[in-house]
Amino acid sequence: MSLPQRPDEATRRLVDPACRVTLAGAANPVDDAAAERLKATFDSEELAAFLHDGVDKLQRREELVKLLQSQPWSDKTHRYFLTREQEYVGGLEAAVGIWQQMRGERLSMEDGITMRSLAYFPGGLELHIGMFIPTILGQGTPEQQAKWLPLCNRLQIIGTYAQTELGHGTFVRGLQTVAVYDEASKEFVVHSPSLESTKWWPGGMGKTATHVILMARLFVKGKDYGPHSFVVQIRDLATHLPLAGVSVGDIGPKMGFNGVDNGYLSLDHVRIPRDAMLMRFAQVTEEGRYIPPPPDNQKAAYATMVYVRATIVRDSGDFLSRAVTIATRYAAVRRQTATKLGEPELQVLDYDNVQQILLPLMSRAYALVFMGRSMMDMYHSFDSARARGDFSVLPELHALSSGLKALSTDIAATGIETARRQCGGHGYMLASGLPTLFNSYVQNCTWEGDNNVMYLQTARYLMKAAIAVQTGKPLTGSAKYLSDAARQPNAKCQVAAPEDWRAPAHQLAALAAVAAQLTAQAAAVLARAGGGRPGVEGEAWNSSSVDLIRAARAHIALYLHQNFIECVEAASSQRKLSAGPAAVLRQLVALHGVATLLDAAGDLQERGYATGRQVALLRGEQRTLVRALRPNAVALTDSFGYPDYMLNSALGRRDGNVYQALLDSAKSSPLNATQEGPAWKPVLEPLLNPQARSRL
Amino acid sequence: MSLPQRPDEATRRLVDPACRVTLAGAANPVDDAAAERLKATFDSEELAAFLHDGVDKLQRREELVKLLQSQPWSDKTHRYFLTREQEYVGGLEAAVGIWQQMRGERLSMEDGITMRSLAYFPGGLELHIGMFIPTILGQGTPEQQAKWLPLCNRLQIIGTYAQTELGHGTFVRGLQTVAVYDEASKEFVVHSPSLESTKWWPGGMGKTATHVILMARLFVKGKDYGPHSFVVQIRDLATHLPLAGVSVGDIGPKMGFNGVDNGYLSLDHVRIPRDAMLMRFAQVTEEGRYIPPPPDNQKAAYATMVYVRATIVRDSGDFLSRAVTIATRYAAVRRQTATKLGEPELQVLDYDNVQQILLPLMSRAYALVFMGRSMMDMYHSFDSARARGDFSVLPELHALSSGLKALSTDIAATGIETARRQCGGHGYMLASGLPTLFNSYVQNCTWEGDNNVMYLQTARYLMKAAIAVQTGKPLTGSAKYLSDAARQPNAKCQVAAPEDWRAPAHQLAALAAVAAQLTAQAAAVLARAGGGRPGVEGEAWNSSSVDLIRAARAHIALYLHQNFIECVEAASSQRKLSAGPAAVLRQLVALHGVATLLDAAGDLQERGYATGRQVALLRGEQRTLVRALRPNAVALTDSFGYPDYMLNSALGRRDGNVYQALLDSAKSSPLNATQEGPAWKPVLEPLLNPQARSRL
Repeated sequence: MSLPQRPDEATRRLVDPACRVTLAGAANPVDDAAAERLKATFDSEELAAFLHDGVDKLQRREELVKLLQSQPWSDKTHRYFLTREQEYVGGLEAAVGIWQQMRGERLSMEDGITMRSLAYFPGGLELHIGMFIPTILGQGTPEQQAKWLPLCNRLQIIGTYAQTELGHGTFVRGLQTVAVYDEASKEFVVHSPSLESTKWWPGGMGKTATHVILMARLFVKGKDYGPHSFVVQIRDLATHLPLAGVSVGDIGPKMGFNGVDNGYLSLDHVRIPRDAMLMRFAQVTEEGRYIPPPPDNQKAAYATMVYVRATIVRDSGDFLSRAVTIATRYAAVRRQTATKLGEPELQVLDYDNVQQILLPLMSRAYALVFMGRSMMDMYHSFDSARARGDFSVLPELHALSSGLKALSTDIAATGIETARRQCGGHGYMLASGLPTLFNSYVQNCTWEGDNNVMYLQTARYLMKAAIAVQTGKPLTGSAKYLSDAARQPNAKCQVAAPEDWRAPAHQLAALAAVAAQLTAQAAAVLARAGGGRPGVEGEAWNSSSVDLIRAARAHIALYLHQNFIECVEAASSQRKLSAGPAAVLRQLVALHGVATLLDAAGDLQERGYATGRQVALLRGEQRTLVRALRPNAVALTDSFGYPDYMLNSALGRRDGNVYQALLDSAKSSPLNATQEGPAWKPVLEPLLNPQARSRL
Repeated sequence: MSLPQRPDEATRRLVDPACRVTLAGAANPVDDAAAERLKATFDSEELAAFLHDGVDKLQRREELVKLLQSQPWSDKTHRYFLTREQEYVGGLEAAVGIWQQMRGERLSMEDGITMRSLAYFPGGLELHIGMFIPTILGQGTPEQQAKWLPLCNRLQIIGTYAQTELGHGTFVRGLQTVAVYDEASKEFVVHSPSLESTKWWPGGMGKTATHVILMARLFVKGKDYGPHSFVVQIRDLATHLPLAGVSVGDIGPKMGFNGVDNGYLSLDHVRIPRDAMLMRFAQVTEEGRYIPPPPDNQKAAYATMVYVRATIVRDSGDFLSRAVTIATRYAAVRRQTATKLGEPELQVLDYDNVQQILLPLMSRAYALVFMGRSMMDMYHSFDSARARGDFSVLPELHALSSGLKALSTDIAATGIETARRQCGGHGYMLASGLPTLFNSYVQNCTWEGDNNVMYLQTARYLMKAAIAVQTGKPLTGSAKYLSDAARQPNAKCQVAAPEDWRAPAHQLAALAAVAAQLTAQAAAVLARAGGGRPGVEGEAWNSSSVDLIRAARAHIALYLHQNFIECVEAASSQRKLSAGPAAVLRQLVALHGVATLLDAAGDLQERGYATGRQVALLRGEQRTLVRALRPNAVALTDSFGYPDYMLNSALGRRDGNVYQALLDSAKSSPLNATQEGPAWKPVLEPLLNPQARSRL
């Protein structure tokens, strides 16, 4: 049965041969979507090209989409219908498929990364590629690299990285797995001494990996040298069965990411050769002498953490912008409620309360996208300096990347769910794409360092800065504003009219005032708790943690906004963007500042920086900016540049044909494989009186 | 391999025969859990009995848990491992199982409801029981009831309620499905005239239901009488196949609730007899005369909405308290980070920032539990009045239940996710119970009226109240405080010391001041937008909606807190609770007030009601209250009274044996059915070079 989008002439004749009745307005979602694009005041493709580093790269992406759509392992038609087992096998097939495409077609590494992100089917190879190979490269001796890397690259072994234990995550020093050197046999005995020491979480370890990098506490001659890395084979290569002394398996289903077989591992006095220890830095000699790593080694470990956190910051913008794309496009074609029957219903995006949620969220998505770019740039320039032995920016970069990891994942996770709720009931369907985005994203708030622990890392840096300010030392870098604030402790907000709040200077001054005040307050609380001693450990630190987290969050919020301003100004002044998109981005920047300040409305006033009236002006200005951006809402989603294949969302389709897409998706649901459904024979037929007439 | 919880003597001997090394503190989660209960200052069982209306009911619940644990259809061991198809069949089996237990064992309706809540396995019968039967009871003639109800009760037919369409949810008047009376054949033609008019969402409609209550716009002689209800058979009773002209199926998987086969339905000129229209109120005679319903009929429809919203408010407390139970118990036995290796690590619940999140959340859970009880009481007393024809409280009840639906689901949904994040990585596992709680709960924010639409319902009531205040009319009920506020527009907060903030009078005065100011502001914005005319429709209303929603939310936040205070005071003064639990509940009430006020820190100051210093005192008092409540944290989870069977959470177990439970759960994961896993043969073996030696 082929139906018109909305009731047509035929229906009118059915209900009333005289056609006096109309059932609803004639607007059609596909027309609505097209009309939105005509409203735009800028060239969305120009902005898309800028955000993707050139038209060439956008085109290359489209080619790769076509390639992926032609492969069975990257087909997305049934992605929302998979069983856990199908998801696991499928995720692995997709990863292997991309790997083999890259080798066979001689695609670049960049192509591979793009394909991974387009296909988005995380599977059992994630940590082989993301952690096992890099760790051997980073920590293995040349001999170890020569032994393992060719096998890794041909996928003849598959590895993972086993650090976290059932009872220990963030507190790495507390790991209980041991590696004891046996001088007699010149082997290590690796062992899990307790239930809590069971390795837990490593991706791919459950059913896929043949090898792990095992983080274990090294004991030599009864002395504890703390966590070190060992390559341990866990499965037989010919049979894939666990080796003797190895208990290994999948940890069970999770909220998302179920293509990945996160695993558990318990070792019962397993013996491994001495050269299984990765010995580029620390070493244990044959006779059992421990050679400590060079002093810079700890810094290298920090550098790795910084890199991982930088990628998390980058991904936050990626995920939030996908959610905002879906919700905004759907709100533009979804119509609800007419004042009078028969008149066109209002586009949901024209409801004031909906715009005032979605457009500030759009500004946050853009802010995170720019932050991700800057964070990766910062990492790469640090990496170049590091090659010259220059680690000077590491403390600052570590503090920033920790806090940004926390703030960006908080914003993205909350924002994805906010976007989902703007889609009404249909946002609850997997076919909308939003539940999967949320469920696979939200782990970012707790993994790679729980967000509160991350904010506390930034707070450590801030507290050192606060002490420096007190002792009159000049500050540089991201905390420089603390010195300025200390010189003008009673500065007041200078905003007099609503449009003043648009000015970057007023916004930055206000965010800096809040961050400086919260930092000063946290320092005072900490000093009081420590009996005057400015400690950064122990009970005083713990009892100050709420204040410390608030200060760190405010510091990072300032940094995030400042980066957004600077990136947009640089793109404009370097003529990387023409006037059209630059003007729209400036409006987004202004809205981002206003929305960030409204989040801090209480703090702006609490210590007298801003008056209630100034906060009220902020609210009015948010409304003005949202209305100004409204015509560009859909064009701004186009500039993120997500192909329909990537979004895999019935509601977020570019063409607006949402209802047809929902129905098509439903018809592929496995529950509809038979008309009578899987419960008919076992449950329903015995109940529903088979002797009954067919019709009542 | 049986392992001790934490490393023991044997391990010490392995790593160092001289036993000089300790691997970690000796605390055991089971001991930690037991120690927590010894800290409590009140009898948690007394409070549990109070919250469950008596010890008898608690005991009855335990008996029903035993009954459920003995039945295959309510076994929860594999609940987190089901495929969609298994979940659908299983949900139906559980519902049928409970239904048959009730009939066979002659259990009460109350027992059945308790069993449903304990087993918590939503399935294809939800709307048969919750909507189909009640609608026939409420809107069917005696003849219609006599025809349908016996079939319903014997499950010889299964019904659902088909209102929502692909293109229309909240806007019921916009439904496009039509029922056209054909005077010649004395039948109705029911028809879906467009893609958008496809019925979408009804639970059980996909593969289970044989009948639906169809909401369709009634046309008689070309005239549109708006939505009416019809009983329409959709499937053959002997074959379960869709009848001619009926397209029906499952809409596909959702974020949660996948045991339910939500369905789509499209009708192609299907003919149904005249008596298929539910005619207790409106009627169509044989000759095609329309007899309208009595004027009170609209009120009856409102009463049904109020009932549904009241149950949503009740469930919000239920879900949030389960999440808080799991997170609090796990935080009490989870230990992370020692200042010195070998010393006991700190219980996560003793981290200041964790307590300051979990205990305010606990206070919100209790506030919602008490609100749910009051809401149901209010509904029942309205229902008695209604039986006497007295609908006088309906406008107030409608406004309150709408706003409370929105606020309570916002608090619960956000709170469940907050609780989940406090569990670190392990909260991401389905075995923790938290992802399923969140994913099945969060639909409550968008169904039965999107939350923003709900707040706007409350705002309508508030705007009428605001106009009454302006014209000097005395107000009663929940908005009475608006009159008081109008008399004292410049009232100031009287708090001078932190402990002042504990006093209900100060808390209520501050919450009322915020609500009154936001209401007055919304009224002014609305009047301005309407050019002086106080309209509650159209463009002016839309352009004021952000202010209207803020006002409604503040009004409801005040009501929620006021109810919490009153319930606890009543229980104490009527000696339903002894001094111990009453004192702890008063601390929770105080904390709830402080936390609610901190949410409004900006608004408290914006119009000069409170100073920055007073807000700072609020923050200090929150900390004091949290510390005072800390010893009772686990006991307060016990008082919610959730059996382990119901929580189905490895982390929320009463006995604290969390790590063993996680490992046991993982071992049942279907991916572990074979050692080599499902990807070995199809994907891995061809890669991993079968000629390789077994060990490298």
